Formats: sequence, C-alpha cells, structure tokens
Amino acid sequence: MSALPLSGVKVIDLTRILSGPFCSMILGDLGADVIKIEAPGGDSVRKQGHMVEGLSWYFAGFNRNKRSMELNLRAPEGIAVLEHLLADADILTENFRPGTLEKMGLTEAHLEQINPDLIVVSVNGYGSTGPYADRPAFDFIAQAMSGYMATNGTPETGPLRTAPPITDLVAGLYAALGAVAALRGREQGGPAQRVEASMMMSMMSMLAYLSSNALATGRDPVPTGNDHPIASPYGLFRASDGDIAVAPSTEVIVRRFLAELGLEHLLSDPRFETNALRLNNRVALNALIDAALADGTQDDWIARLNRAGVPCGRVQSLTEALTDPQVAAQDMVLRVPHPGRGSVGMTGFPIKFSQTPLGVRHPTPELGAQGPEILRATGYSEAQIATLIARGVLGNGNEPVG
Amino acid sequence: MSALPLSGVKVIDLTRILSGPFCSMILGDLGADVIKIEAPGGDSVRKQGHMVEGLSWYFAGFNRNKRSMELNLRAPEGIAVLEHLLADADILTENFRPGTLEKMGLTEAHLEQINPDLIVVSVNGYGSTGPYADRPAFDFIAQAMSGYMATNGTPETGPLRTAPPITDLVAGLYAALGAVAALRGREQGGPAQRVEASMMMSMMSMLAYLSSNALATGRDPVPTGNDHPIASPYGLFRASDGDIAVAPSTEVIVRRFLAELGLEHLLSDPRFETNALRLNNRVALNALIDAALADGTQDDWIARLNRAGVPCGRVQSLTEALTDPQVAAQDMVLRVPHPGRGSVGMTGFPIKFSQTPLGVRHPTPELGAQGPEILRATGYSEAQIATLIARGVLGNGNEPVG
Repeated sequence: MSALPLSGVKVIDLTRILSGPFCSMILGDLGADVIKIEAPGGDSVRKQGHMVEGLSWYFAGFNRNKRSMELNLRAPEGIAVLEHLLADADILTENFRPGTLEKMGLTEAHLEQINPDLIVVSVNGYGSTGPYADRPAFDFIAQAMSGYMATNGTPETGPLRTAPPITDLVAGLYAALGAVAALRGREQGGPAQRVEASMMMSMMSMLAYLSSNALATGRDPVPTGNDHPIASPYGLFRASDGDIAVAPSTEVIVRRFLAELGLEHLLSDPRFETNALRLNNRVALNALIDAALADGTQDDWIARLNRAGVPCGRVQSLTEALTDPQVAAQDMVLRVPHPGRGSVGMTGFPIKFSQTPLGVRHPTPELGAQGPEILRATGYSEAQIATLIARGVLGNGNEPVG
Repeated sequence: MSALPLSGVKVIDLTRILSGPFCSMILGDLGADVIKIEAPGGDSVRKQGHMVEGLSWYFAGFNRNKRSMELNLRAPEGIAVLEHLLADADILTENFRPGTLEKMGLTEAHLEQINPDLIVVSVNGYGSTGPYADRPAFDFIAQAMSGYMATNGTPETGPLRTAPPITDLVAGLYAALGAVAALRGREQGGPAQRVEASMMMSMMSMLAYLSSNALATGRDPVPTGNDHPIASPYGLFRASDGDIAVAPSTEVIVRRFLAELGLEHLLSDPRFETNALRLNNRVALNALIDAALADGTQDDWIARLNRAGVPCGRVQSLTEALTDPQVAAQDMVLRVPHPGRGSVGMTGFPIKFSQTPLGVRHPTPELGAQGPEILRATGYSEAQIATLIARGVLGNGNEPVG
C-alpha cells in the first residue's frame, strides 16, 4: 500500500473537547502523526458520554489516530517540552479562545523563531478579530447567532437547535481543509501561515440558497419543517407500513413518480398542472398520493421508485442507520479493538481513497500513554524524562500527573 | 501577496447542482483554476432561486472563482475537447450517479491513459459500491437515511428535515478536503487516485456523541429540541425584550451564570445541587432564571454573561445574522461586482489564511463565456474553435448552443 496522503506530516495538537479534536483527527486519519498534548487529567471529553469498560466512546470517536502526551503547560518545563516538539513540527492545532496561545508565551514572533515553517491552525467560536472575538464559544450559541436555528424547525416550534453539534464539526472540517491546503501551499514554495476557522462563520457558509435568497430579497425564510418551500410533491408520504421520504427534483421526475403510482393523469388536472398549482393544492395532492401508496410496503415502494429514478428512502432512526446494509458496505461503522477496553464502535471515514484507503492505525490513546516514548524519540534522555515525570510535568501513562 | 494555496492547480469540473459545485468552488476559492464544463443550456441552478438582473444569486454563490465552458458531451467532438483538457489537468470533479462517467467512455483505464497523474473526485449520494450505489440522490433523502432527521426536531414534531441542504454541503466539503489531500499525496510521490465522498456517509460522520452513544447502548436518542438532553441549565431564557440562548458547558460556568443573576444560592438548594437534580427540576430552575433575567435586556445580559465567560447569544434571524457586526468584521458577506448584473451578495470565506487571504478572482461566469478563450490557450486554432461553435458543440458565451 502507498503512503497515506498526509504521511510524514507531524501535528502538535493542543485542542480539546470537540471542534479542534475533530480537525486533528481528520489530519490523523489522512496519515499525519498527531501528538495530542493533554493537560493534567486529560481532555474533559474522556469523562463524557456513555462509558464502556471505562472508556467514553464519544471521546474514542474523536481521538483515534492520535498519540497522547499528558503535559503540564502551566510549568515552564512543560512549555520547554512543547517548544522542543514544535521545532520540527509541520502543524500546530489549537482551539483555545483567541489570545490564549499568546498568554502561554507562544506569540506569533516566538513561534516563528522556534520554527519558521510551522503552520498554526486555530478553531474558535467567532474568529479572532471583531467585536465577539473574546466571547466564549459553544455550539448552541453559534447555531443561534449564525441564523441557522431560525431556519430549522416549523412555524409551530420556532427556531430550533439541531441535536448534533454541527457548528463544531463544520468548523473542524474547514480547519482541516485549511491546514492541508496551507501545507500544500508551503510545500510548493508558499509561506507557512496561520489558518483559522470559526464556528459561527463556518455555519454561515452552509446556508446555501437560504442566504442567497435572503441577501437578494432582504426577507427571512419561513421554517417549513418537512415540506419543501418551493417544490410539490415533496416530503413524507404514507406506505402501508410506514412513511417514505420522496423528493422528486425536477418536472421529469415528478412525472415518473406519479406514473409509478398510476397517477400520471393528475398532471393534466387543472389543480396540479404546474409546480405552482401543486404548491397551492399540496394537501389534496398529498392525499391522492398517500391513497395510491397504501397498497404497497415501504420496501416495495422504495425499491420501485428508486428504480424509476425517483429519489426516495426511509426515515431511519439512528440505530437503523448504523445497521443499514449500505452503511456496512461503505465501512461506515468500525469496531476497533482497544487493549483492555473491548471493541469500540465508531463511525468510519467518509472520504474514500482508491489507492490509500484510510484506517485506524492507532486506537484512541490512553491519557499520556505515549508521552515518554515520544520524548525519547526526539532526543530526551531517560534521566530527563524521569525528572519531568517526578516533577509532575509529564504523565507516565499510568499515574495521575502532579 | 503570495500565491494562493492551490495556485497552479487545474481542475476540470463536470459537476452541477449543489454538492459538486460546492466542492469545486472551494478548490477555486483556494486558488485552483476551475473550468466548469456545462451541458448545453447550463447548470439548472442558473434558473433557480431568487433572480436579480437575470442572475440567480443562489447559482452565483456556488460558482464564483470558476470559468465556464458550454460543451456538448453527447457529441464525440465534445468528448474529444474534454479529453484534451484532461490531458494536463490535476483534478477532475464530477457528481454524476456512479457509472455515468464510464458510460461517457471515461473509464478508469481510459482516464489513466489520457493522464496518469489525474485525480478523479466524485461526490454522490450513497457511495459507488453497496446496494444503494445506483439510487438517485437528494439531500432530503440523505438526511432521512443517515439517521440525522430522526435526531432533529422535538418529541412533538418527530423526525424533521433541516432547511439547508446540509448533506450536499458536508459531502462537498469532504470531497474538497479529499481532493487537496490526494493532490498533496501525489505531489509528495504518492499515487494519483480516485477520491469519493457521499452525502449519506458524510452526514453519518457528523452525528458525534449521538452515534457514539447509540453504538454503545443500542438505543436511539430522543429528539429534545432546544433542551440539552444531559445539561441544565441550558437553552433559551427570557430577558426583558426577548430570548437569549445560554449554554454553560461546565459546573464552573453554571456557577458563574447563576452568580451573575444573583442566584448562586440555588446551587445549595437541594433541588439544584447537581446537574442530575437540575435536569429533574428543569422547569422550576428555568422559571427562577427567567425571573432574574426579566430586569435586563437581551443586549445587557449577552454582554454581561459573555464577559463572565458564559457562552450566550441571540437567536438571530438569517437577515439579522447577515448584518451582524461580527459577520461584517469577518467579511462573511461579500458584494461582488458582476458585469451587467449589479453587485451580487454572497457569503464569504470561512477559512482565513494570514498570508494568502482568499478573494473573488472571477465573479460567477456567464454560461460558456470563457469556452473559446480556454481552448485558444490550450492550442486550438480559431478555425477549430469556429467549427466547434458552428457544429453546436461549443458555446460562444452569447447564443444558445446547438
């Protein structure tokens, strides 16, 4: 097998919680050597979510393909270790509040001195400039501030938070993309530079035609829940044993959909001849469609309609999705053997590479487990390492630091 | 200014609608030369969404930093032009249904023959292998199938589609990341390879602790709307002139929040001493918080609480978000002068590079406007170009093809 896309890249990772660790995990998944520097006691997510054999599967799902070093960065010796590691790193990732790195002494000038080739990647809430730069960040707030919540929901619910921490994840994904792009630029003769993505701005870039239309008209969209604001038929319809989601995207596909149901004649009914008419008469049309669907099961209709080129599917619960045969075929649920913790479930790799498929090279590390070996490999003597451990600066992977 | 991160990279872009054009726009934003090949009549999104001076701002927002060539790929001469362009390209992007490229004669073997260094990037609905590979894709269906819809909403609404076409966008973003990573790998001596991201699998990777917990327990999450399933206080609270969103992420921050409200004593009230107790007594606690907030405005409380380190903010409508001062400071709304179409509004660049800031180098192209000049630059004679136009294979940027 060929080397992975980011093979040979060294990442020093100061991130914790979610947005930053997602970014650095993606870099690790792509082949980088990611050294996760954890404060004494470790990333707080180690203790969050459902635990199995003492391991948080939530933490595990965001920290595979990393090695862990437990390091006290409040001690000057800890900063010295970090600076030593940064001297030959390619990328530093961090998701502190803007200004925190500088307070640790890692100013732009000092980092440039330590390693002029270092790319510094930051994930934060609002960006490092502007009136909200200093505000503490949290997904729920970024969902609210970005206008996303106001588009999610129904007229009855009003603005609605979405359950996954989507702004953390989208910002982490943009930051990973920025990191790889900056690396490529540097390797082709461009500058080593700072890269930043924020939760609020990342989410604002994901509002697609909602923001285009709002900018063009000055008007806000009305949340429409499962109905499409400008397409009919579209939505959830009722087969004999449950709902199916159907989304005919063009007039041609609307015709195919109705033809499969034996309802093609509706397209010459004055109520339903055009999309605009069908929007006005949505309730009547949907009732006719539901009646036609009642003689077949979800599975029957989903197979038939997909064969006819009509996008449709089941509204799956999360556990249904996780056991879906397509998900299995795409290796999107992994069971990763973890020494002493059993086999850990996590979602897989959404980017598929034909020649260098991604995999779990390191299971999620125990807190500080690789700290001593990492220092050994970068020239620290056994005596130096022992001193750092004895002074409570470095974790040994077994006992708590300090 | 230094060269952009993807400067010198040539992308031949066969994508249309949304997921693929988002991917190729990101590559263009990062500095690649993106040649958008459009079928006669153009990308259907050119006619969707709100039009201003004849231009769809939705289309404009997904196709800046590209040049357009209108080319009939149903004609053998059109395929010959495409093959000529691919011969010295770095990346081919496409979002057809799996197998379509092959039906056009662009099999893996043939592409390898044309250009062994070509990276082929595909965005699709479900992945190119597995039982659903041939199904037509659509965002609503991918939201439904991935389990995402089942986590969005409230117990009253049931599974709820989210308004932005989030699965298109997340898949496009992953595909762009995969493209840049594969390019970097190739430039460092790795293989030119195929890269793929699908809407369903990309969305499945974004469910974070919801999927971790579902895998660990075998149980589905219950949609909780704006309440956090495992944290209290958290959610929307009522200031004198409207709601504020508050998300204290740790016990320390819960204490700061209540202290700012003069309610710190509640933490020694037997109903509210721990997060578990507060979850059980959420209604009572929220009422006490609302009462304390009633003596200040949204703006007052948001400023005060943020200063105290408590993540909070306003639930902004989309037009409020688009005119937010932080959004302005981050240049997240652009007004791009477009010849003959006025100044076009679109969201900006969520990735910030310190040395090579991104910008709009090409406004969204008119259909086919750069086709002739692109061919001229790659060695086609004026006579050859005129013949292609006369035969209805190539658009001239003015009249319809064919």
